[in-house]
Amino acid sequence: MSHAVSPLAPKSYPATPVVPGVRFATAEAGIKYKNRTDVLFALFDEGTRVAGVFTTSKCPSAPVDWCRANLAQGRARALVVNSGNANAFTGRRGVETVRITADIAAKAAGCAPAEVFLASTGVIGEPLDPRKFEGVLDETATRLAEGPYLDAAKAIMTTDTFPKVATRTATIGGVEVVLTGIAKGAGMIAPDMATMLSFLFTDAAIEADALQGLLSGAVVDSYNATTIDGDTSTSDTVLLFATGRAAERGQTPVTRADDPALAGFRTALDDLTLELAKWVAKDGEGARKFVEVRVEGAVSKASARRIALSIANSPLVKTACAGEDANWGRIVMAVGKAGEPAERDRLAIWFGDTRVAVEGERDPAYSEAVASAYMKRDHIVVKVEIGLGAASDTVYTCDLTKEYVAINGDYRS
Amino acid sequence: MSHAVSPLAPKSYPATPVVPGVRFATAEAGIKYKNRTDVLFALFDEGTRVAGVFTTSKCPSAPVDWCRANLAQGRARALVVNSGNANAFTGRRGVETVRITADIAAKAAGCAPAEVFLASTGVIGEPLDPRKFEGVLDETATRLAEGPYLDAAKAIMTTDTFPKVATRTATIGGVEVVLTGIAKGAGMIAPDMATMLSFLFTDAAIEADALQGLLSGAVVDSYNATTIDGDTSTSDTVLLFATGRAAERGQTPVTRADDPALAGFRTALDDLTLELAKWVAKDGEGARKFVEVRVEGAVSKASARRIALSIANSPLVKTACAGEDANWGRIVMAVGKAGEPAERDRLAIWFGDTRVAVEGERDPAYSEAVASAYMKRDHIVVKVEIGLGAASDTVYTCDLTKEYVAINGDYRS
Repeated sequence: MSHAVSPLAPKSYPATPVVPGVRFATAEAGIKYKNRTDVLFALFDEGTRVAGVFTTSKCPSAPVDWCRANLAQGRARALVVNSGNANAFTGRRGVETVRITADIAAKAAGCAPAEVFLASTGVIGEPLDPRKFEGVLDETATRLAEGPYLDAAKAIMTTDTFPKVATRTATIGGVEVVLTGIAKGAGMIAPDMATMLSFLFTDAAIEADALQGLLSGAVVDSYNATTIDGDTSTSDTVLLFATGRAAERGQTPVTRADDPALAGFRTALDDLTLELAKWVAKDGEGARKFVEVRVEGAVSKASARRIALSIANSPLVKTACAGEDANWGRIVMAVGKAGEPAERDRLAIWFGDTRVAVEGERDPAYSEAVASAYMKRDHIVVKVEIGLGAASDTVYTCDLTKEYVAINGDYRS
Repeated sequence: MSHAVSPLAPKSYPATPVVPGVRFATAEAGIKYKNRTDVLFALFDEGTRVAGVFTTSKCPSAPVDWCRANLAQGRARALVVNSGNANAFTGRRGVETVRITADIAAKAAGCAPAEVFLASTGVIGEPLDPRKFEGVLDETATRLAEGPYLDAAKAIMTTDTFPKVATRTATIGGVEVVLTGIAKGAGMIAPDMATMLSFLFTDAAIEADALQGLLSGAVVDSYNATTIDGDTSTSDTVLLFATGRAAERGQTPVTRADDPALAGFRTALDDLTLELAKWVAKDGEGARKFVEVRVEGAVSKASARRIALSIANSPLVKTACAGEDANWGRIVMAVGKAGEPAERDRLAIWFGDTRVAVEGERDPAYSEAVASAYMKRDHIVVKVEIGLGAASDTVYTCDLTKEYVAINGDYRS
C-alpha cells in the first residue's frame, strides 16, 4: 500500500465541476486499511438512469452478480464502493453480504435495495463482514456533498499510487452537460475489463437503453484496450449514472443511442473513458513507462487487436521496455505467437518515429543510438505494420518491472 | 549469461550411455559468446531417420523453415546447432545463411545439404554470418566422439543456467535400445513449443513416419505442457534422430507408430521428454520454484489444459509463488479468466495436500500456517477441482521473480 507514486502520475488535477444530481461522501470503515478512507457512498436524484459493463470472468464476484441483476431496470439511487476486500469467491456468505449491504444502503438512502449498486475491490476469498457498513453508511449520508471527486477517487484505491479523475463537457441539443468519472486499477488488468472499477456521472437526460449503448461502445477502445498483466479480475465494473438534471435546463431527454443529438456526448464519453483507461495503464503496478502499441495493416480490427494484445501482454516485450532496450526481435516474436495472419517478410516495426525493421529484417538505416535514446522516454509508442490489410488498432500498457514482482509477491501477506 | 545457477538444478548428472550411430563434437565459433562453446555438430550413420516438431509461430526462423522443408524425406546425416544468434527475422540474408551453413556442414559430413538439420538460438533480428561456420565445422568433424552428452547440452545453452540431459532405455522385440536427449530453454517458453531446442537420439530402428507419430504424441504432455512466460519463440525445434543401429543386434525395424512392439519405447520417449521439459521449467529465467498445476474435473482435456495454462501463465499467480503466498484468490481469478466452463461455487483448490478452498469459499478447515509453510518448498503443486466433468491435465511452470525482470531487461543490450 505504501509503494512510491508512479512517475507517470499527473502533475496536478484539474478542477472537477459538480454533476447536478450526484452527491457523495467517503468514510473509514476499517475494512482492511488503517487511516484512510475505504468506502464511497453516492446518492443520486430520483430518475437517475444507469448502464453497466462487467468482467467476463466465469467466476465473478458477488457484487458483480448483484449489479448485473439490478441493471435490467435501468434505474439507480445509490452506489456503495469499498476497497480492501473484493467479496469475491466468498460463497453463500458473499451473496448474503451483498444483500445486507444493499439493505443498509437503501435505508440510509431512502430507496429500494434494488436501486443500490455495489462494487468491492481488494483481496479475493476473504469474507467481507457486512456489519462494517452498519452505522457507517448512515453517518456518511449526513455528510453528502457534490464534491470533491478527488476524495471519491481516493476511497476506491487499492494498490493504485494516485487517484484517477477526469471530466468533460458536451452539448446535447444546445444544452451543456457535464461528464465526470473516477477509476481505480493497478493490477489484474486485462481487456474485457480489468480489476478495474470506474464510475461515470453525468447530468444528461438519457434513457437507460441509450446509455447502455453509449457505454458499451465507449469501453471497446478504452478500458478493453488496456492491459497491465493480462490477468482479468473477478470484479471489474464500469457504471455510468445519468441523473437527467440537464432536463431542467432544457435538454430534451434522449431515448436512442444513435440519436444524432448524442454525437458530442458520445465523443466526450469516449474521450473521458480513454483518459481514465490511460491513467489506469500509467498506474499499473510497478509501472515506470507508459507503452502504446499500435498495429496497422492487419486484415481486420479484431486481428489487429489480438496482435496488439499479444505484444502488450508479452513479458519479454514488457521487460525490454523496462530495460530501455529497443528489442524489436521480441516484437516479432509477439506478432508470431498471436496466431493471426502475418508474414515475416512484410513486417515493419517502429519505436516512435524510428523504423527499426522493414521487409523482414533490420532497417538498413536503423540507428541503435537513436532507438536507445527513444526508449529512455516515459511514453513509448511501438508501431507494427503487418502489410496485409487496412485495419488498425491501439492498446495501452506499461512496462514490467521488478517492482511489479515485489508488489505482487507480498500483496496479500 | 552470468546469472546464478537455478536452485532447482540437478545435484548431479547420471552417466549417459552412448547412442550407437551418433557422434558429435562442440566448438567455439565466437558467434556471440566468449570463452564457451556455441556450436554442436553431430554426425549420424547412414540410414538414420528423423522426426521433428516446430514452433507454431507465424514468423518462424529461417532454420525452422529449412528443417520443415527437409523433414519430408525423413532422413538425416548431420545436425548443426548454434547458440548466441537465432537467425530469426533476418530476411533473405537469413535464408542465405541457412543455405551456406548447410553446404559447409554437408561438405564436412560427406552428405547432401538436404540431409543436414539446423537450429539456431539466441538473439532475434541480428544477421548470422555463415562464415562463422567456415573452417569450424571441418575442424569439429575431426574430433567427433560418442560422448559426453553433457558437452552437447552445454554448447546449446543461452540464458540457461545448467545443461539438460536425460536418458532412458527400452526394449523393442526383446532388444534393448537407448534413448538420450538434450534440451535448452530458459525464456520465451510456451506451449506449442518454446524457445526450446531439444534433440533426441536413439539407436532404435524405426521408420520416419512411425518416429513422427511417436514424437508428435510425446510433446503433448511434455514440452507443450511447459510454460515459462507464455511467450512463444520463433525458433522452437524438437528433433528425434533414430540411427537404426539396434537392427545389428536383432531389432526388427518398425514401420508403424501403433505397432505394439513400440509400447515400451513410447513410454520411454514420453518419460524422457517429460523429464527434459521439467528441467526446462526448473531453469526458467529467474526461477526459484518449480510449479506443477493440475486441473481435475474439467469437461474435457482441452478445457483442463486451457485452465491449467491460464493459471500457469498468470503473472499474479507466479508472483504469489515467488512471494511464498498461498494466494488461492488469484487461482480463482485465473480459472475465471480462462473462459472455460467453470462454476464458482463448485471449485476446490489445494496447495499440496492442503485444501484451501471448497464449494466457492475458503475451506473452513484451512490453516494459513500449514499452507504458508508449504509455499516455502521449492516444488509447489497447485490442484484445482472444477467439479463439472472427469477430464484432467497437468502443466509445468516456475515462479516469476525479480530476476526474470533483471535478466530480460538487459539481455540484448
